[in-house]
Amino acid sequence: MTSLRLRLYSIFTRLVIKPWVQRVNDPAQARQAFEKHARRMHVHPARADYRNGVIGKVPVLWASAGPVSRPEVLLYLHGGGFIVGSPDTHKHMVADIAGSVGMEAVIPRYRLAPENPFPAGFDDVLEVYKGLLARGLRADQILLGGDSAGGNLALSLLAYLSCKNEEMPLCAFVLSPVVNLEGGYDSLKENAQSEVLLSADRFDELGKMYLGHQDCGQDCASPIHAKFDRCPPILFHHCNGEILRDDTLEMQRKLVSKGHDVLVRSWPNAFHVFHIMRGHFPEARAALDDVSAFLKARLTSSGN
Amino acid sequence: MTSLRLRLYSIFTRLVIKPWVQRVNDPAQARQAFEKHARRMHVHPARADYRNGVIGKVPVLWASAGPVSRPEVLLYLHGGGFIVGSPDTHKHMVADIAGSVGMEAVIPRYRLAPENPFPAGFDDVLEVYKGLLARGLRADQILLGGDSAGGNLALSLLAYLSCKNEEMPLCAFVLSPVVNLEGGYDSLKENAQSEVLLSADRFDELGKMYLGHQDCGQDCASPIHAKFDRCPPILFHHCNGEILRDDTLEMQRKLVSKGHDVLVRSWPNAFHVFHIMRGHFPEARAALDDVSAFLKARLTSSGN
Repeated sequence: MTSLRLRLYSIFTRLVIKPWVQRVNDPAQARQAFEKHARRMHVHPARADYRNGVIGKVPVLWASAGPVSRPEVLLYLHGGGFIVGSPDTHKHMVADIAGSVGMEAVIPRYRLAPENPFPAGFDDVLEVYKGLLARGLRADQILLGGDSAGGNLALSLLAYLSCKNEEMPLCAFVLSPVVNLEGGYDSLKENAQSEVLLSADRFDELGKMYLGHQDCGQDCASPIHAKFDRCPPILFHHCNGEILRDDTLEMQRKLVSKGHDVLVRSWPNAFHVFHIMRGHFPEARAALDDVSAFLKARLTSSGN
Repeated sequence: MTSLRLRLYSIFTRLVIKPWVQRVNDPAQARQAFEKHARRMHVHPARADYRNGVIGKVPVLWASAGPVSRPEVLLYLHGGGFIVGSPDTHKHMVADIAGSVGMEAVIPRYRLAPENPFPAGFDDVLEVYKGLLARGLRADQILLGGDSAGGNLALSLLAYLSCKNEEMPLCAFVLSPVVNLEGGYDSLKENAQSEVLLSADRFDELGKMYLGHQDCGQDCASPIHAKFDRCPPILFHHCNGEILRDDTLEMQRKLVSKGHDVLVRSWPNAFHVFHIMRGHFPEARAALDDVSAFLKARLTSSGN
């Protein structure tokens, strides 16, 4: 049963936020509005702690909630269509996940498009990953996460590491990622109406802003095209009615056909990255708990 | 990491059992061999208890392991290509799952093809489901499970109940089901070599034996064609290298597009319904625990 609160929030999102997402044209204005929304609406976990830092040349936000008892680090890549969002818009949900496992999270403040097109953001992510290793962390002490465009960056990082034969994170979780910037899949049209938050009409535009003059078929922009000879155990969440539904299903099919350990959970009646509304409805809690259980199981079975 | 024991057992299965599955022609001989293999190889849980019974006109086996503390019943439909298998070949893994949740399981001894073609087996399953309701059980006190051909029967039962607008079980788990008897999917060819147990060449033959003169496109024979306007939360397990891989992925896609709550876990390097080898390698244990965790979570969130 879908909670009344999720249903009400979905109606609000569809009536207020979706039309705004559809018409906003100035990236600066969009960023400001998202940050303001985050400050007003996002509910932080008890004992949340945030510290600014720098890894390599990339500013980051360290996030935790409660005592940090584990040496592992959650490397989390926030979403926002490559254009908006920051560690501050996602730190509450990231602190929740990291805190539930007793570890710290690091959220890169990667450069955004269109001012900094691909591969600027990806390069920042890679620099933070390598910076963590340079600080003495083993690759299998890094747990990777990301949502939406951040899910694209997480998958792109895995694709890159696989291709370069470099060491992989212990595991990854990816919430409704974008995997293909070449026009997307059936669900982009099929779910244009049922989608609560995003604008199907603006998908191409977003891709163009991110890619600048680059080719959208590149493995680190559209990870669906990467070889993925290696991939750590990976959890996907997606919502049934969202336009990015098939991005998850296609990526799953690819990774499964390559022999990898893939877990995919669908969330009926929720909306794109509803996890961000933690504290507002029970489904967000359940979804964050599901991520946390996945990470704990991977840590246990790795013997870390 | 795949355990050494699973790898050794996979080699044994590929070298000894697969060629036998490929050439055996007499259903009676095949049944006898499977029953003998089960008696010799299957490891039963502590305090396993099995009782023969009858529901409607259908013989069943009741299975439990340890104290039964819950009123719910696990209705489990065994696999065996519609031709072989019985409650006795699957009772150990069913008792394991039911016991871990503290409930009892019932395994219908449904009629097998080719002597009893479709819809005989399905009718038996439906009779047991209705018989449980007639005994005073509510539909949401029935948890449904099945593997392979039994997964087909489980999905077919759900398809039937959805179509007839009848009450649904609380949830279902389906291990590498057959969902389409009309020739199957890409993985039938793609994984013909990597498949450890089954013979891709004999898929059509099996379908013909089961269907007799019936149409393979019927919803209760090839549930991929059913409407599935309703479906309870459902867990799928599949192995990456098996010929039935795409049956799961196609069914997932259908159920997700219909808005249902679907969880899909891939098992790399394991083989078709490896759960049956409980006690032989840790992956079987992990897979049965995963089913058990799913059932417990559904029972908790239903408030049963």
